[in-house]
Amino acid sequence: MRTIDWVDGHIELIDQTKLPGELEVRTVTELDDLINDIKRLAVRGAPALGVAGGMGVALIAQQGLKGAELEDASRRLANARPTAVNLSWGVRRVMEYANEGKDRILEEALAIRDEDIASCYSMGQYGADLIEELLGEGQHAIMTVCNTGGLACVERGTALGVIQTMFERGTLKEALPVETRPLLQGSRLTAWELEQMGAPYRLIVDSAGPFLLRRGFAQAFFAGADRITANGDTANKIGTYSLSLGAKAMNLPVIVVAPESTIDMETKTGADIEIEDRGTEEVVNFHGVRTAPEETQAINPAFDVTPHENITAIVTDRRVIRVDRGESPSTVPLGPIRTRSN
Amino acid sequence: MRTIDWVDGHIELIDQTKLPGELEVRTVTELDDLINDIKRLAVRGAPALGVAGGMGVALIAQQGLKGAELEDASRRLANARPTAVNLSWGVRRVMEYANEGKDRILEEALAIRDEDIASCYSMGQYGADLIEELLGEGQHAIMTVCNTGGLACVERGTALGVIQTMFERGTLKEALPVETRPLLQGSRLTAWELEQMGAPYRLIVDSAGPFLLRRGFAQAFFAGADRITANGDTANKIGTYSLSLGAKAMNLPVIVVAPESTIDMETKTGADIEIEDRGTEEVVNFHGVRTAPEETQAINPAFDVTPHENITAIVTDRRVIRVDRGESPSTVPLGPIRTRSN
Repeated sequence: MRTIDWVDGHIELIDQTKLPGELEVRTVTELDDLINDIKRLAVRGAPALGVAGGMGVALIAQQGLKGAELEDASRRLANARPTAVNLSWGVRRVMEYANEGKDRILEEALAIRDEDIASCYSMGQYGADLIEELLGEGQHAIMTVCNTGGLACVERGTALGVIQTMFERGTLKEALPVETRPLLQGSRLTAWELEQMGAPYRLIVDSAGPFLLRRGFAQAFFAGADRITANGDTANKIGTYSLSLGAKAMNLPVIVVAPESTIDMETKTGADIEIEDRGTEEVVNFHGVRTAPEETQAINPAFDVTPHENITAIVTDRRVIRVDRGESPSTVPLGPIRTRSN
Repeated sequence: MRTIDWVDGHIELIDQTKLPGELEVRTVTELDDLINDIKRLAVRGAPALGVAGGMGVALIAQQGLKGAELEDASRRLANARPTAVNLSWGVRRVMEYANEGKDRILEEALAIRDEDIASCYSMGQYGADLIEELLGEGQHAIMTVCNTGGLACVERGTALGVIQTMFERGTLKEALPVETRPLLQGSRLTAWELEQMGAPYRLIVDSAGPFLLRRGFAQAFFAGADRITANGDTANKIGTYSLSLGAKAMNLPVIVVAPESTIDMETKTGADIEIEDRGTEEVVNFHGVRTAPEETQAINPAFDVTPHENITAIVTDRRVIRVDRGESPSTVPLGPIRTRSN
């Protein structure tokens, strides 16, 4: 099953707001519906939003839009979530073929989809090999944060994709997803994906992560990334830094898994990354139940920055960067995209 | 208002599971109700549990229990929460007068209550002085975990009691309580108490704590303690260890605030402390809404252990133990209980 796909001339996507209670596949035939689905997080995750951007342009091109009309509509799509870089990237990439007709546009949108699938398989191979190298043969338990699975991509995930590859190889003892407050992507989405793949896992609250690493419940910590800067610092979901401290305190590997497109050589260090504050409401309300006094204000950073000193390695679809050995994105050459069999 | 008190021959306590929405004072006349209230955390917090232990024995003694019956019932009360050393301490202290009649038993239970009130004033003075010594004059922002306020004690708190004293002295810039999953004592109780006292505060999710310490949002981390072992290791609410790592990484003070009764010289180190697992349900349900798949199991440690290496100082009602200078409970003599004015 794919999180987002092109089927019979329209887009199909899993409505992630219904998970884990209900698996609803939505058929999207109108641009406004897609924009609304993006805004309400029915489709989310950087790679999946790139695909949504490309397929959204393909959808309206198939419906006959061209020229200035196509450009205006594309701009509206790209702005559905202003902070999601991949969404506008997907729109822009497909719009480069705006003058070459609707079939070429669709072809490019499908290429984004297929490249994401290949990229995730490749990260799985690089990552699972690295874990064998670092921890030896046998089964290992892995802690992870947020949702970095197929639901954030197309078929398979980034950090959770490596866990899936370990499971397929028989080297996963157990996954320990943290619930990931305030939006609970770990319990709502990652636990659901692990359940679907039949992998062994147990859920924990975010703050239990470092202590359970200390008590030996997991042997490594895997995270995705929203942005990796030139020196290897990594912006990711809030809580990643905390878990990196927990792993580092026990000399356990901290592995960042993300496609090459996440590496931003224009930004020198994590200190240069602006952190989005998503406001009070997410923290003080749960499904309409107020959990704090009416007057309470919150600080709600969506992301944090894990300094490269806390990172053992960055795994991409093209290489492994051993940050713990002083390597950085600029010092390690690109390797091949790997398939299931290599 | 007192969190727990003896009124007209029975126990009255604030049902903390109803906060912050509703302030309900429960009248408790039966031991089984008290045990149930302890188990479901209607009354919680180490000092309040000490009072509950003492008053629970007084309650059944007033009802005529004595001898082996009184001992059996007391043991059942003491075991209502196995990690909470204060509960069994309160029971044992009052049971030393088991043969001296119900009035002497009640007198001892009331003494526990009154000593807790005095003890919390004293911790506030020792702690606020220590912060001035460590951080200098002026206003400081303090991060804290769980609820260690009047709701965990009788009238004033331990760690939050120091924050309250700082607020009264004009040296509190802001309190940053973490919400404290899974039961949200930080958002439900600590935010409520800070609101009541009119102190400036902002709420954060647990996993944001270490990152916000890194970015300079607070200058120290205060925690309570459920048990302090002979070497200074401290058992406290899950998430304390994580925040101690975050503070230590930035060389910020980690201050443990707890009454002398929390020190357990019989237990050598934190490794000897059994950690209570409170089961899956608290993690996967919120107010009846399932947040994870039906099949999901959780690891749910109620406490963690912060090793003494991560602790700057332990503040009690009788002394300051500078753990960072190699001091431990056995090397620092007891000082006086301090009042508001000294």
